[in-house]
Amino acid sequence: MREAEVPVVFQPMNKRVHVLRGTRLLEAAAGADVVLDQPCGGAGTCGKCRVRLTGELCAPTPAEQQRLSEDELEQGIRLACQTTVCGPITVEVPQTSLLGARYQILSTAGSHGEIAVDPPVRKRYVELPTPQRGDDAPDMVRLQRELGPFRADIGVARELPGRLRENDFRVTAVMADARLMTVEPGNTEAEQFAVALDLGTTTMVASLLDVTTGAERAVTSRLNPQTRFGDDVLSRIVHATENPDGLRELAHSVVGAADEMIGELVAHLGIHRDRVYEVAVAGNTTMQQLFCRIDPRPLGQVPFVPATGPGLWVRAEELGLHIHPRGRAYVLPVIGGFVGGDTTAGILATGMAEASGPTLLVDIGTNGEIVLKTNGQMLAASTAAGPAFEGARIEHGMRGSTGAIEKIVVEPCERGACMRMNVIGGVLPTGLCGSALIDAAAELLRHGVLNQRGKLLMGDELDGRVPPDLRDRLRLHEGKPAFCLADEQISGTGKPILLTQRDLRELQLATGAIRAGVSMLLKTAGVRPDQLEAVLIAGGFGNFIRRKNAQRIGLMPHEVDRGRIRYQGNTSLAGARAVALSRKVRAAGEEIARRIEHVDLSTNLEFQTAFADAMLFPDNT
Amino acid sequence: MREAEVPVVFQPMNKRVHVLRGTRLLEAAAGADVVLDQPCGGAGTCGKCRVRLTGELCAPTPAEQQRLSEDELEQGIRLACQTTVCGPITVEVPQTSLLGARYQILSTAGSHGEIAVDPPVRKRYVELPTPQRGDDAPDMVRLQRELGPFRADIGVARELPGRLRENDFRVTAVMADARLMTVEPGNTEAEQFAVALDLGTTTMVASLLDVTTGAERAVTSRLNPQTRFGDDVLSRIVHATENPDGLRELAHSVVGAADEMIGELVAHLGIHRDRVYEVAVAGNTTMQQLFCRIDPRPLGQVPFVPATGPGLWVRAEELGLHIHPRGRAYVLPVIGGFVGGDTTAGILATGMAEASGPTLLVDIGTNGEIVLKTNGQMLAASTAAGPAFEGARIEHGMRGSTGAIEKIVVEPCERGACMRMNVIGGVLPTGLCGSALIDAAAELLRHGVLNQRGKLLMGDELDGRVPPDLRDRLRLHEGKPAFCLADEQISGTGKPILLTQRDLRELQLATGAIRAGVSMLLKTAGVRPDQLEAVLIAGGFGNFIRRKNAQRIGLMPHEVDRGRIRYQGNTSLAGARAVALSRKVRAAGEEIARRIEHVDLSTNLEFQTAFADAMLFPDNT
Repeated sequence: MREAEVPVVFQPMNKRVHVLRGTRLLEAAAGADVVLDQPCGGAGTCGKCRVRLTGELCAPTPAEQQRLSEDELEQGIRLACQTTVCGPITVEVPQTSLLGARYQILSTAGSHGEIAVDPPVRKRYVELPTPQRGDDAPDMVRLQRELGPFRADIGVARELPGRLRENDFRVTAVMADARLMTVEPGNTEAEQFAVALDLGTTTMVASLLDVTTGAERAVTSRLNPQTRFGDDVLSRIVHATENPDGLRELAHSVVGAADEMIGELVAHLGIHRDRVYEVAVAGNTTMQQLFCRIDPRPLGQVPFVPATGPGLWVRAEELGLHIHPRGRAYVLPVIGGFVGGDTTAGILATGMAEASGPTLLVDIGTNGEIVLKTNGQMLAASTAAGPAFEGARIEHGMRGSTGAIEKIVVEPCERGACMRMNVIGGVLPTGLCGSALIDAAAELLRHGVLNQRGKLLMGDELDGRVPPDLRDRLRLHEGKPAFCLADEQISGTGKPILLTQRDLRELQLATGAIRAGVSMLLKTAGVRPDQLEAVLIAGGFGNFIRRKNAQRIGLMPHEVDRGRIRYQGNTSLAGARAVALSRKVRAAGEEIARRIEHVDLSTNLEFQTAFADAMLFPDNT
Repeated sequence: MREAEVPVVFQPMNKRVHVLRGTRLLEAAAGADVVLDQPCGGAGTCGKCRVRLTGELCAPTPAEQQRLSEDELEQGIRLACQTTVCGPITVEVPQTSLLGARYQILSTAGSHGEIAVDPPVRKRYVELPTPQRGDDAPDMVRLQRELGPFRADIGVARELPGRLRENDFRVTAVMADARLMTVEPGNTEAEQFAVALDLGTTTMVASLLDVTTGAERAVTSRLNPQTRFGDDVLSRIVHATENPDGLRELAHSVVGAADEMIGELVAHLGIHRDRVYEVAVAGNTTMQQLFCRIDPRPLGQVPFVPATGPGLWVRAEELGLHIHPRGRAYVLPVIGGFVGGDTTAGILATGMAEASGPTLLVDIGTNGEIVLKTNGQMLAASTAAGPAFEGARIEHGMRGSTGAIEKIVVEPCERGACMRMNVIGGVLPTGLCGSALIDAAAELLRHGVLNQRGKLLMGDELDGRVPPDLRDRLRLHEGKPAFCLADEQISGTGKPILLTQRDLRELQLATGAIRAGVSMLLKTAGVRPDQLEAVLIAGGFGNFIRRKNAQRIGLMPHEVDRGRIRYQGNTSLAGARAVALSRKVRAAGEEIARRIEHVDLSTNLEFQTAFADAMLFPDNT
């Protein structure tokens, strides 16, 4: 199956993936974490996702022929939502085609999009007149004459006299909002960085930003080390509650990991930690509290009360993050209950607060969050999906990294229909990630191997129409049915990679939780699924969810036109990035978090019923 | 001479002094650190200084008979500026007669004066509704519903969940401006304190304030321990410059002393340090920088540049002050050069910024500060008076504490004219303080024992009219003339208390520096001395300067009508107190410090000439 995969390289980010021939380019890009903008939902009508290809190109589609000139087609310009991968190609991605381009690419002088880079931390190189007879103004006033009024704390007051005189009064002032953070010797204007941190229950992602241009300069991710204390938020709250040192342990592990990630990022760029001045942190309520070492116990009891609402400013040093010694962290505002700063970030990154029609955002993670925007109202809820989509609690589950089966299709073949799959990195598979789990369940449902109640069928239970390739993959595992994705010969671990009955139960629970949450929010607002103008799927697990399959297993409402379902990538990270780059966006986030209504599903009896209903896979026959 | 002294007790402050019969009551009060208001300058016309006396009363003066009813006179009501001490008395001082009453006595509900207590730190007891199903608002939002919007840092966010739940959601919120500093268990509204600190070069004074009422609850003072590194600001700057650890040593010693003083104050009242939330600090520029451990080296070189202008906020913990762990210190704004927060405080305490006519403030300390208010303009200058007025660099000098000769008069006696003196505490004298130094010089000038150039005359140099008592007190000390204030028989130390020729030189320097500064400011503004509507004398040395004597030695311009010269007490402390009690006053101080013009005398050649001229005592003949 590896021979069917071809390499696709994205520039200028220099990212490479191997995908099956016939894969939509938009999907290949998502697999490489290159998330393209698609305001039209991939219908080929807006032309936002144009890219330039070199290599083995497919013929233009009718939509491309309509949107692009002959000249453009000749130059290899294509729409990523339309063209597929026919062979090895290199894709040049213009900045304007990237999702979130409005936050990322505009320098302060820019004017391409809605929001210019307006970072909370700014630098300004100054050459001050040296003190003379008749001009004995205080050092701080001397600086304020150039920079306008600002506040300054004692740290910078202590630093200032020496720093000015050692550098002949030529220094770079670092301002954090209206506060002077430091003055640096000489001109350091070119080096001003911030880190955006997505604090997932299972996965942490950190991004290093050049705040002068808004460009992302490096990204890194890792497993949240708190997983060793439990793989969902509740088990961590229990750990903090039951162990005297539990809270400190949890905080220490996650902050330590974040600090190591910052170390990786700056090492990658060869810059000093002191040149990072701010960290924007987005996570669910529990993750944010544990990160800040705030007692999460009230989140473990009805009615699940967070400690804080508005965004929290913390001296980075006080947290244990080693950036500039007077640098700071901004922890995004909490909406309510378990709906935390990651959801605020998601709303900011998708711009859904400004959507005209009913819009739904579903952030699929261990803690699933759902936001519904209707006329003038926004509702938000969270639902405990569990870590299945991130590969945890799944027999051979793994994160979407090298070796993970990330896509599964059943295609016509000489035996009637055969299963084919795509592995990240083009290596032998060592497990499967969330998107493949959805694919597998959808295909097994479609071909009658899985029934509506989520039971894997075997032997006599199977209909005669089940393709032989699928039938042959069924076997018993610990006395229960299992489906073999890769046998020992083609497994990177030397052992078969199985999808077990229990895996499918976990998927049912996760899917049911999300779907029931969506149903409840729609019901609360009096909106029917078919009225939704857009369904935005977010999720940090980094792979492209096949919309058709997501609808087939019931994760997305089947009444929604597929073109209205759009993949948004990791919106928690994108929102944290936006907040680190724009004071306007940060202020908007505070306002949104204050206004949005939190719907508490956990104490809602109707939700329990909806959840039970949603545990059944939809009848797609 | 002790038998001539009678005790005077002031209530409700319970302060006792011993004064010579015939002493004005206003002066006796000042000696007890009870500073009475005298807007009319002690002319007996405004009636502000009324007090009630019991004991041996003198007959009412004509001014008293005019201002007070017969009933009042019968009850012992007198004007402190008019009546004198005829025998032992007890004085009841109404709060409204105290200088600075407008800052001190008004509770938030008050309406007696210009400025109500409006403290930066406020407490509010709340009983919050406990979280219920359907009300899962974050703890912080729950508190904001009661208190309105506020900022909170991570410390209070960490504290909040536990503190609320352990106390059944009944807590007292402590707000510092718009920031929530802490929440305390139960109702602690009655306990909210601040400390005002006058950071003198020689003397430190700290005052504990109840910010709910504005009342001063305790005061303590001590020698600034930095004096062991040098007795003026320049020698301390040199110490910080020449010793690698000098700055740290200087900061450590003064902060340590302040922290001990806070300890004394809270111990006196039996309260916990945690109930003090703010410290307002006023000192000259150098003292403030050393207190904050800010490098003072630029203050040691022309053109003498301070580090900061606006007021500085510092976490008390960061300084090394042990008040509430999240308490803060406010260091008053610097005006320019050596004119620091003590002068800003003085302007605030005297209200001179609102004066209608030309007004002069002279703060007499080791670092002398002078402020001139004319039509719409304010000028400020500093001048290095040296510590003579505080008793340092004087052979038998001491601070104005028990044992100090604080008043010297030459009165008619059987020998023609005899010297008499008053000793603080009614004990045998152990030295003399600043006010007695001024008195002695004035009397010696008046009786021809001291000439205009400051030389003590002896033997043949003396005019035949010099009273024998004075002539007999002259002797040689280390080969130079000296004047004996108290011989070994009546000295508390068993050795004679002398006034030496060198002491008089120190006084000449100190007086000359102040008078030259005054002259220069008046000249700069084009104001003649006789045009001054008020001359306000401030000074932390705690004793009453005899205006006549101050004019006689040239410390105050002789052209000013004596009634216009008013003693204001320690305005640095009073201003720090006002700032701790009123946000409005604090804001006014920032504004004043920004607007006022600093006149740098140190680099002014005219000042050098004026200084040389001012070294001559005035010709009073």
